[in-house]
Amino acid sequence: MSLFSALAAGERLQLAINEVMTRDGLQSEVLFVPTEAKIALVDQLSRTGLAKIEVTSFVSPKAIPNLRDAAEVMAEIIRHPGVTYVALVPNVRGAERALACSVDEINLVMSIGEEHNLANMRMTCAQSLAQFADVMSLLQGSPMKVNGTLATAFGCPFGGRQSDERVRWAIDAYLELGMHSITLADTTGMAFPRQVYERVAAVRSAYPQLPLTLHFHNTRGMGLANVLAAVEAGARSFDASLGGIGGCPYAPGASGNISTEDTVHMLEGCGIATGVDLDALLAIGRELPTLLGHDLPGQILKAGKSSELRQRGSVKAQS
Amino acid sequence: MSLFSALAAGERLQLAINEVMTRDGLQSEVLFVPTEAKIALVDQLSRTGLAKIEVTSFVSPKAIPNLRDAAEVMAEIIRHPGVTYVALVPNVRGAERALACSVDEINLVMSIGEEHNLANMRMTCAQSLAQFADVMSLLQGSPMKVNGTLATAFGCPFGGRQSDERVRWAIDAYLELGMHSITLADTTGMAFPRQVYERVAAVRSAYPQLPLTLHFHNTRGMGLANVLAAVEAGARSFDASLGGIGGCPYAPGASGNISTEDTVHMLEGCGIATGVDLDALLAIGRELPTLLGHDLPGQILKAGKSSELRQRGSVKAQS
Repeated sequence: MSLFSALAAGERLQLAINEVMTRDGLQSEVLFVPTEAKIALVDQLSRTGLAKIEVTSFVSPKAIPNLRDAAEVMAEIIRHPGVTYVALVPNVRGAERALACSVDEINLVMSIGEEHNLANMRMTCAQSLAQFADVMSLLQGSPMKVNGTLATAFGCPFGGRQSDERVRWAIDAYLELGMHSITLADTTGMAFPRQVYERVAAVRSAYPQLPLTLHFHNTRGMGLANVLAAVEAGARSFDASLGGIGGCPYAPGASGNISTEDTVHMLEGCGIATGVDLDALLAIGRELPTLLGHDLPGQILKAGKSSELRQRGSVKAQS
Repeated sequence: MSLFSALAAGERLQLAINEVMTRDGLQSEVLFVPTEAKIALVDQLSRTGLAKIEVTSFVSPKAIPNLRDAAEVMAEIIRHPGVTYVALVPNVRGAERALACSVDEINLVMSIGEEHNLANMRMTCAQSLAQFADVMSLLQGSPMKVNGTLATAFGCPFGGRQSDERVRWAIDAYLELGMHSITLADTTGMAFPRQVYERVAAVRSAYPQLPLTLHFHNTRGMGLANVLAAVEAGARSFDASLGGIGGCPYAPGASGNISTEDTVHMLEGCGIATGVDLDALLAIGRELPTLLGHDLPGQILKAGKSSELRQRGSVKAQS
């Protein structure tokens, strides 16, 4: 049954929205965002109804200088009940740092496109999985949950479209290592809505119990269409980045992550519940251009919500 | 049946894509685009497989100075067999000018949101319809086709969401005047995908024989999601603007019309045929920033097609 027919027939959908701005967004910012500003952002975001917040990344400060204060941020945020606080972890050293901060969940990332993994992580996929095995050993007995992200899960910018078999291979490897949930990430915004629908349907059919998150970038304008395609195929958890920050290094000027506020605006406007307070999100987002020193790709921050009516004034002709 | 299931089951869809850049796009440009450049653009666009090209608008040169050369452009373009050449016409005087140029089709536009019509056209809807009646009288016996656009067909920025009843009222009025086809325009980018699906389904059910076009703006990031929602409800004809130009005066910095190349890229990538040569479109689009003196909202021009693979080089971490 189509998503729209199901909604018209009264089906109620409730999605989980995960904010990745302070990690996926800030990691590619040129200016260093002060530690107190990061903490304040996470604390404000904690009160908006988001399911998870990917707070930071325990990577080498040399690799990503903007996240060099990961431990300090994790230590000082006020944890809100009901919100899962996530950190990205690239290796055992990162996992140790995450453990020391009692992060709720760590996110391990491998690009299933072998060439992207080599370019991005400087490791083969086999080497990534070996590192993940070491991380899982370290975490034995810890309450920390582990999410495994399949980056370039739809297409690799070097190797092209990824097959269902490749996706199943990676999920099987992750599950064998004991990971608890999976994210399919369209890292460079190559996914088409039909491909998303078919991939999500295939993964849900093969792993019906597996908690699944979708992570889209809007690099080619299809971000929100991909969200709806994934919802139609049964996905119920989505990553997004406030203001749409988190660019693609291959596409200067193109959009990055899908914007949290645009995603929530569309979903709620379609009668799909997100639990997120859009006005609260927008209030936080309005401060971002000043903090980051540049304009944001998110559209609702510029155009306002569809429900926000105007007073009649001077208006140019258009149709 | 859902669109994606139908495609997976082998259903073949063929859409018509109509280019509105030289009218809806250029009308809001600050710089005057030279007449020869407009003619060259239309001539290049004519060879890309587009169904219609909305070439210009026979409005007062005072209202829209950039289109003051409407008659010259219409007279000098080389008409390509199979392409319908359209001009927007606001009144009888415009229709006379269009007739003199033997335009294939004129486009009459009324905002169904009474307040937007007042702001935009400086007329009540009743006054617009009276003008259209005069235009239709003038055209009696002429082979020129007439398309009627319902601007703000989903939401009016002053009056809010528009009802199915209001849409039916306007379509009935247009059909009674003898118009041949209808466009539902989301003039200020307020439509939600679910609303689009329901509206298109309702209009197709009430007027099964009526040729119907959808005209979306990407003001709130939902443009391409709205296209898919409309396709799912049976729409087969879409307006779009090369480069995504054609801004919204209420939302500085927000996107304008959906971009033709992004729309074609998404549709073809979903296995939905458009008949449009995407590479030819992109070649034309790449010249636009220089011609217009500014960056364009279209994403594929910046990010490249999903199928365009890269050589491995220096790449920053991202997921």
